[in-house]
Amino acid sequence: MTDKNSVLVDPSRRRLLGAGAVATLSGALAFGATAPAQAADKPEEANIYDVTSWKIKGRAEVTAQVDIGAVINDIIADIKKRQATAGTRPGAVITIPPGDYDLRTQVVVDISYLTIAGFGHGFFSRSIKDNVDTSGWFDLQPGGSHIRVLTPSTAPQAFLVRRAGSPRLSGVVFRDFCLDGVEFPPDGNSYRNGRTGIEVASDNDSFHITGMGFVYLEHALVVRGADALRIHDNMIAECGNCVELTGAGQATIVSDNLMGAGPDGATLLAENHEGLLITGNNLFPRGRSLVELTGCNRCSVTANRFQGFSPGMMRLINNCKENLVTGNHFRRGMEGFPPFLGTSNGLDDLYGVVHIAGDNNLFSNNLIAYDVSPDRIVPPNAQPTMVLIAGGDSNVVATNHVVSNVEAQHVVLDASTVRSKVLDSGPASKVTSYSADTAVRPTP
Amino acid sequence: MTDKNSVLVDPSRRRLLGAGAVATLSGALAFGATAPAQAADKPEEANIYDVTSWKIKGRAEVTAQVDIGAVINDIIADIKKRQATAGTRPGAVITIPPGDYDLRTQVVVDISYLTIAGFGHGFFSRSIKDNVDTSGWFDLQPGGSHIRVLTPSTAPQAFLVRRAGSPRLSGVVFRDFCLDGVEFPPDGNSYRNGRTGIEVASDNDSFHITGMGFVYLEHALVVRGADALRIHDNMIAECGNCVELTGAGQATIVSDNLMGAGPDGATLLAENHEGLLITGNNLFPRGRSLVELTGCNRCSVTANRFQGFSPGMMRLINNCKENLVTGNHFRRGMEGFPPFLGTSNGLDDLYGVVHIAGDNNLFSNNLIAYDVSPDRIVPPNAQPTMVLIAGGDSNVVATNHVVSNVEAQHVVLDASTVRSKVLDSGPASKVTSYSADTAVRPTP
Amino acid sequence: MTDKNSVLVDPSRRRLLGAGAVATLSGALAFGATAPAQAADKPEEANIYDVTSWKIKGRAEVTAQVDIGAVINDIIADIKKRQATAGTRPGAVITIPPGDYDLRTQVVVDISYLTIAGFGHGFFSRSIKDNVDTSGWFDLQPGGSHIRVLTPSTAPQAFLVRRAGSPRLSGVVFRDFCLDGVEFPPDGNSYRNGRTGIEVASDNDSFHITGMGFVYLEHALVVRGADALRIHDNMIAECGNCVELTGAGQATIVSDNLMGAGPDGATLLAENHEGLLITGNNLFPRGRSLVELTGCNRCSVTANRFQGFSPGMMRLINNCKENLVTGNHFRRGMEGFPPFLGTSNGLDDLYGVVHIAGDNNLFSNNLIAYDVSPDRIVPPNAQPTMVLIAGGDSNVVATNHVVSNVEAQHVVLDASTVRSKVLDSGPASKVTSYSADTAVRPTP
Repeated sequence: MTDKNSVLVDPSRRRLLGAGAVATLSGALAFGATAPAQAADKPEEANIYDVTSWKIKGRAEVTAQVDIGAVINDIIADIKKRQATAGTRPGAVITIPPGDYDLRTQVVVDISYLTIAGFGHGFFSRSIKDNVDTSGWFDLQPGGSHIRVLTPSTAPQAFLVRRAGSPRLSGVVFRDFCLDGVEFPPDGNSYRNGRTGIEVASDNDSFHITGMGFVYLEHALVVRGADALRIHDNMIAECGNCVELTGAGQATIVSDNLMGAGPDGATLLAENHEGLLITGNNLFPRGRSLVELTGCNRCSVTANRFQGFSPGMMRLINNCKENLVTGNHFRRGMEGFPPFLGTSNGLDDLYGVVHIAGDNNLFSNNLIAYDVSPDRIVPPNAQPTMVLIAGGDSNVVATNHVVSNVEAQHVVLDASTVRSKVLDSGPASKVTSYSADTAVRPTP
Repeated sequence: MTDKNSVLVDPSRRRLLGAGAVATLSGALAFGATAPAQAADKPEEANIYDVTSWKIKGRAEVTAQVDIGAVINDIIADIKKRQATAGTRPGAVITIPPGDYDLRTQVVVDISYLTIAGFGHGFFSRSIKDNVDTSGWFDLQPGGSHIRVLTPSTAPQAFLVRRAGSPRLSGVVFRDFCLDGVEFPPDGNSYRNGRTGIEVASDNDSFHITGMGFVYLEHALVVRGADALRIHDNMIAECGNCVELTGAGQATIVSDNLMGAGPDGATLLAENHEGLLITGNNLFPRGRSLVELTGCNRCSVTANRFQGFSPGMMRLINNCKENLVTGNHFRRGMEGFPPFLGTSNGLDDLYGVVHIAGDNNLFSNNLIAYDVSPDRIVPPNAQPTMVLIAGGDSNVVATNHVVSNVEAQHVVLDASTVRSKVLDSGPASKVTSYSADTAVRPTP
Repeated sequence: MTDKNSVLVDPSRRRLLGAGAVATLSGALAFGATAPAQAADKPEEANIYDVTSWKIKGRAEVTAQVDIGAVINDIIADIKKRQATAGTRPGAVITIPPGDYDLRTQVVVDISYLTIAGFGHGFFSRSIKDNVDTSGWFDLQPGGSHIRVLTPSTAPQAFLVRRAGSPRLSGVVFRDFCLDGVEFPPDGNSYRNGRTGIEVASDNDSFHITGMGFVYLEHALVVRGADALRIHDNMIAECGNCVELTGAGQATIVSDNLMGAGPDGATLLAENHEGLLITGNNLFPRGRSLVELTGCNRCSVTANRFQGFSPGMMRLINNCKENLVTGNHFRRGMEGFPPFLGTSNGLDDLYGVVHIAGDNNLFSNNLIAYDVSPDRIVPPNAQPTMVLIAGGDSNVVATNHVVSNVEAQHVVLDASTVRSKVLDSGPASKVTSYSADTAVRPTP
């Protein structure tokens, strides 16, 4: 991906991708194999592993059912042993047949081009199960290629993907299996168990996460330093947090996913990303936020569906610049599930269903449907804010439609905003600017 | 998916998901196995089945080629026998190698987490084949993992997915094979043969249908009571009806599909859905309708391409509320294929290329390209209607572009509409409201 | 796909799909097998091939590692031998386990329903590797199911898909492997080596290219005469040209791809397409153009992200009619990578970041973020043009937002344009029309 070449010359880009990128570029020698790829060795095997047939030498009792983590680590060790030079490392595929597997040992992925693939995402609503009488139920847990994450708190990630040195890990694929955190003690409603499904902890290139199921993990998927990542067509629900793109990143797609986080977590969080494309996702409750961009520039949030129970369903914070938010549907409803009645993400209804702080963002063609009982609105008797431009230069809010069960302000602009435009997004009475230079064209 | 928890407390939601949801919640005891999942049994096998190697005991003559339905049912029976307790049911994958298979016995799927997977969608245009001289043709039928649906009229669904009791079936996956109804007697142009590809007949959670091919089925795919369903990246063409989401449903994605129905059928029909996201589909002729939403609320139809031959290409009917229709391309052409010349879906050109009945829908940023010979327009000499707001409160039509080969009305609003807005969607002469309170801003 | 039936009666459509379609319809007899499919023969094998276990008779030394092209051709010959009648040709799947393979002999695919599938796209940035000190690097080339394309210049396509006669090839699938052109002599920065990954050279139906990786090919993917093609969820980067849809085509989807071409090439080029849907792609540098439509009608470009270094990032040329371009993010930056400093695609900044020539196109709801040093702008001291309507009737530019580091013209309309509309896309000072009848509504 040629854009990465920019790393070579642009100091700010180097910073963007963090310390790992610098290491990549300095060619830090962290591994002995330096044979060039002029004439590739020919692998003897087909590089296809099945976790159910793999035996750890001297530990026959550790099957994939007992500890799939130990098995996969042993397979990775075998791959590394067999693929011994820098020019002969195509990686491998590790297959996980449908079945129930316990993961007691954290898997560490430190090779490129590894595909870990199951045969079914196996999602099951543990939350319903934990809140009803299940006598007579046919199914009591998820299935498919089903991994129960039983990692210790000292190494909570089921899959930790990380490598120092250069180049960045590239082309790792997770597909079509289920990562299940098993429990949210004590009652299934805490959304806390310290467990993480997958964490990519060093800079990475062209990873692909697709067809997966995640359930009952405090953190489903964390990727730091993403470049050309695809998170596509997954089911990520009943997790404390769903997708967290941390550190920084660029040129990533998050699309066609079904996602819903716990009441305190983020459904999709991205930090310091450039050119992130979030499209075609169906995002449902709960989540303290559904899309939360912090310090992100020139990203797109298009054609998604949002359903949430709190203010700040979408947030562009910490000076987000030049982002496009168009063609989305925002449903702000209210919590109806007894365990979570009265919970709050700490924000009030003046924060905005959508909250934007930064410059030159375009928020257009969205539909916001607000339906909250008057007695649940905070502060009491306030008119809730649909879109808050909390600060920044030259933001545009255009051609949005709002429907609300209560009197609401469609757009509010704080005094620190400058040169904002609000077009065709409600009558004059529903657009309030505390800034002198806001241009407002009320909907006729 | 925590949103489902709402079922527990919201009577209206219970109704939404139909009787099955009630059964789920009441924990109806329909099955004896209640062993908890504390310590999972370890399956002896890998839970991977191949239809070509499976033998039905005592019926060696019934191979997958002879009756893949009987074979799959026998495999499912084996799965159920081996996975005997509620905590040890990960399901399985049934693979279908490329080949031609007859399905004479209906498959009944009544277990969760079953993946049925082939290796190729194998679409072939039976319609072209049935309407030309095929002497010398290389191929005369579909291929890939190709199932000829030869079900009897008493059990017309090739795959019937259904289970009473609780929980709902979850995580069933169909992928990468071909369901072929073989014939539309007498000449390939009836689009009727009574056959259905897949029908999901009871409430379901997080199903995934992807990479499939469907051809020459009167009903390709029917899903009742969908929750968190994904219908993604399929080829569904030359079917009477393509996708029918019946009963009710929520939080579903239909994306990246190629679809085209027969002249009398629906390409994508959804009943009483909440938060359905329809995006990135390429919908082509024919179809009485291409997207037909009835009683649907807060759904999105974004970034799709429509090509159709009849009025009512997209319909929001039976009080559809708060839906977002944006960024779509509508091509209304006319039938040119001799067998269908003169056919009609019973609607005239005053019905609207797009027909909207309900409240607070936003129709924006769409392009409608109309090209029909004047002599084919019904009623004669009428100016065809591009968008009809047939009734309802506070609908908004904004920033649409229309190109037509004849004089046309871009937007017509019936007298029963109230508080509608029509902005930048044509000159004043092309916007006609029979309601007194419509706000119109003509395109300059 | 019933729309194809139109071929039967519409001479213009026949032209649209080129000579192959005519051959299809005339039933040209090019093959002896005419047995009807009344009673299908039962294949003896499962139609699953593994390139690593296949032996070419009498040429045991030619393994897949030595020449995967020769192996696949031999497999295809076997498929054709075994599937000997027109009613018994389901095709097959050829699997490519992870590994490094050389392709020295061009593969010719002349059968329908063939799936060629690997287990990982294996992308690796050869460009970074070729421009830094790689001593100590862990990886020196791509991986996954990794094919090194070493084709001779006389037959440069690794996969050439082509068949004369009827019907068109249908249902061919490429998925989840890596096509790697190995080198761009002399230094990795020429983007020229004469090699093509996949070329589909005759009319085709319902092909599916998904999950692939392409790198260092002068032409990654070329498809002529596409109908109902899906190019979905691929990684196509560091290629001279990424996707070229040549000749003509219809009803195709290009979605969810990561793509970036070389400085002289096209990222996505489409000729004479009808109803092409381009959505959800993340398009990054470089590329002389990112989306280039020539003679295309009624296509959609929605919800994509563009990052480019040259004028003409998106072009609708040669009388493109009735296309919809909405909800896209355009980032025009500038080249920072030393080898390409000073290169140019030959266009100046008056050409437009977006260039539109044709009628009735709608360009709406896009965000253009321009950031180029004043000394790099051509011609010197010019105000760069964001959107140029270079000619045509009734184009509409509405509700776009522009942010630029220099004084820029948001929309310029040439004198040959008629009946254009420019709405809410900048202040009056930033919209310049050389045509008398342009309607402009400046952003308030």
